[in-house]
Amino acid sequence: MKEEQTIPYKINLSEEEIPTHWYNVRADMKTDHRPLLNPGTGEALKQEDLEPIFCEELCKQELNDTDQYIEIPEEIRDFYKMYRPSPMVRAYNLEKALGTPAHIYYKFEGGNTSGSHKLNSAIAQAYFAKQQGLKGVTTETGAGQWGTALAMACAYLGLDCKVYMVKISSQQKPYRREVMRTYGAEVIESPSEETEVGKKILEKNPDNMGSLGTAISEAVEAATTQEGYRYVLGSVLNQVLLHQSIIGQEAKKALDKYGVYPDIIIGCAGGGSNLGGLMSEYMKDKLNGEGNAYFIAVEPASCPSLTRGKFAYDFCDTGNVTPLAMMYTLGSQFIPSKNHAGGLRFDGMSPILSQLYHDGYIDEARAVEQSDVFEAAELFAKTEGTLPAPESAHAIKVAIDEALKCKETGEAKNILFGLTGTGYFDMAAYQAYNDGTMTDEIPTDEDLERGFESLPKVEIND
Amino acid sequence: MKEEQTIPYKINLSEEEIPTHWYNVRADMKTDHRPLLNPGTGEALKQEDLEPIFCEELCKQELNDTDQYIEIPEEIRDFYKMYRPSPMVRAYNLEKALGTPAHIYYKFEGGNTSGSHKLNSAIAQAYFAKQQGLKGVTTETGAGQWGTALAMACAYLGLDCKVYMVKISSQQKPYRREVMRTYGAEVIESPSEETEVGKKILEKNPDNMGSLGTAISEAVEAATTQEGYRYVLGSVLNQVLLHQSIIGQEAKKALDKYGVYPDIIIGCAGGGSNLGGLMSEYMKDKLNGEGNAYFIAVEPASCPSLTRGKFAYDFCDTGNVTPLAMMYTLGSQFIPSKNHAGGLRFDGMSPILSQLYHDGYIDEARAVEQSDVFEAAELFAKTEGTLPAPESAHAIKVAIDEALKCKETGEAKNILFGLTGTGYFDMAAYQAYNDGTMTDEIPTDEDLERGFESLPKVEIND
Repeated sequence: MKEEQTIPYKINLSEEEIPTHWYNVRADMKTDHRPLLNPGTGEALKQEDLEPIFCEELCKQELNDTDQYIEIPEEIRDFYKMYRPSPMVRAYNLEKALGTPAHIYYKFEGGNTSGSHKLNSAIAQAYFAKQQGLKGVTTETGAGQWGTALAMACAYLGLDCKVYMVKISSQQKPYRREVMRTYGAEVIESPSEETEVGKKILEKNPDNMGSLGTAISEAVEAATTQEGYRYVLGSVLNQVLLHQSIIGQEAKKALDKYGVYPDIIIGCAGGGSNLGGLMSEYMKDKLNGEGNAYFIAVEPASCPSLTRGKFAYDFCDTGNVTPLAMMYTLGSQFIPSKNHAGGLRFDGMSPILSQLYHDGYIDEARAVEQSDVFEAAELFAKTEGTLPAPESAHAIKVAIDEALKCKETGEAKNILFGLTGTGYFDMAAYQAYNDGTMTDEIPTDEDLERGFESLPKVEIND
Repeated sequence: MKEEQTIPYKINLSEEEIPTHWYNVRADMKTDHRPLLNPGTGEALKQEDLEPIFCEELCKQELNDTDQYIEIPEEIRDFYKMYRPSPMVRAYNLEKALGTPAHIYYKFEGGNTSGSHKLNSAIAQAYFAKQQGLKGVTTETGAGQWGTALAMACAYLGLDCKVYMVKISSQQKPYRREVMRTYGAEVIESPSEETEVGKKILEKNPDNMGSLGTAISEAVEAATTQEGYRYVLGSVLNQVLLHQSIIGQEAKKALDKYGVYPDIIIGCAGGGSNLGGLMSEYMKDKLNGEGNAYFIAVEPASCPSLTRGKFAYDFCDTGNVTPLAMMYTLGSQFIPSKNHAGGLRFDGMSPILSQLYHDGYIDEARAVEQSDVFEAAELFAKTEGTLPAPESAHAIKVAIDEALKCKETGEAKNILFGLTGTGYFDMAAYQAYNDGTMTDEIPTDEDLERGFESLPKVEIND
């Protein structure tokens, strides 16, 4: 097998091969994209409605469904050069351990200090805020990867960065907090006394340990009430998938060099930024009838938005301060059981991914259980060296399953998955797995019904 | 400045450019290397004396002072392909922040899960143990990087791995411990009930929290009393510097592509494995009159082996179970004040580096204070993106100082330093820095005198 010898372990691109444009999948989507709605009036939101929250250029990107490619400013490309192109890795050792004829590839996005792909969008959002002459940005963080990425981007640009960190996360992951502080970010435990929302919650219950929903509400309030600030977000939004498209563009460029076209493309899906980025050029092919990769979105069985949720208009946060988005959702009041893959605990899903799944361009969503995920993570770590983030390990689990199917059928399929990040700050979860105390918690139908009851009643005019 | 545009941020080599041989600096050293001595008899140790402790091939490497290059087995090269060649980075953003005409380069070894260069030697030592048909290896770990690296290598090869981890470290860094466990290593808190040494210590004091010296003693005892085990070590030894020579070989290959020859080469020095690896081909040039880089070894002011120690025969451990080595040392009973750069808290120094420093081939040793080191680390993180290990930040501090000298003189010197690793498991130290509670503790002359009193009386016959 000549090919086996000529494809290196890591396919590295040169800095000149970093994409010059972001790919905007909305320009190629066949179904009219459902707009964000004002929850009060039910009307579609326009540029001016979004500008108090997001900076101008990002509002434009959020609403842009016509331009197929949007140029990446040179300053952002310079930042990308510090840690990109990210490697495309052939998982030779995992293949050998599985004894599969499949060829497994993964695009590794965890090689930067934020430990994930989040940095790709953080630098873009911080850059446009800086360009607009703003003083700083606010955001929330749960697991901490997004907050870290934003802190790094803001440090580089000299921009203020206020991160509302869920109090329980801040106390459970003090070292994540310290990374952000080292990059100069102000990390505020949420709920806090700094916002009206936070004050009200603490008045009722001073021991409230916070939630992502509360942190979002505080970050949005801080951005809209303080002069010179805007709010930024690490996933779900169209602009985030736009920025993340560089992952898929690099992936295709790397595999094209060896004439490899993936038969299966696998990504974990929490808010959707990773799979949304990984798929980019391959989804473009599929939408235009030029390629037919089989896309699998992997989610935790504990928070099964795509596999058991509804395609409906919903709020993007528990506090219901955001616009309504059309997406697969478990309802904004759904409370996912404790799952260590913090980045996948969102009850909703990127509207873009939701629509593509609804229309069949994303072929399959698969829910996997946590203990299986960590078993896959351990095998991956031992064979491929890198200790994966629990989120990424969801994709590993399905890649392994697909490779084992190939072992049965004898097919040498090309499997591509996204290794979004490293698990260095998730060792408490690994400890639970190592100690045998990890549990799988899957919502009952009754749990889901309770969540669906919180869906807003909206008339869709399309 | 054309050059500025043509040198990329990261100079990546291809997998074919991974060195095929390790470089053995001893073959080129001008001074007869002082042998390891039996502490009882004062006689030079031979292959057969070392074989109960180390596996055969590694004993040969330890004693080899004639072969300039030693071939790297293909299996080890295959492992290297998973994370090497490591990138050579041009620190454009740091240069800009400093406003220096100097060109700063760093060889980044932290891109693998062990978080440091230690993996380069771990896989080699584990491989030769496996080749000899051994069941497993034992070692000690303090900060945890070496233990992690060894666990990864053993997982890959299917070899048992027993790590004696200093009890206080294990409790302060539970997540480091979990990484090792995830790779299948058995992590034993030292002092333990599993060895005679450990039992005796615990009998005297059940609350003893351990020390690196005790952990070494336990690991050596476990290796020599259990069938099928040998002991392995992550620094100091000649064999470790041999394996680490691939760092310097790759560094030279990368910089040669752009016609860059470093004027100054900077490495932190604890046991010496990092600087010993980084210098390799450049030191070869210097020893053979074909290059004249200025070498600086950087150590913490709290543990100043080279700058304030004695060049003398000494034990390599506090427990005095090891052979005697000729090296710069503060005395095996010297207790370094608490310093967060755990990897630099060794009272001795690699015999190779010691001899080269004694003979003037390493031009300078410089001791730096911890708070200055963290200030440099923070600037580096903010400008270059990567959060450095405290150990590596010692080299960053001196690289910045040298670059600022260039700013004064207007010289565009080429400065190369080793970024040995990342600081993701050292956030407690960063927290102390961020909180302003970090202190610098420098031993007094009396402290040093007490350490020197523990030096063994040895007659050197040369």
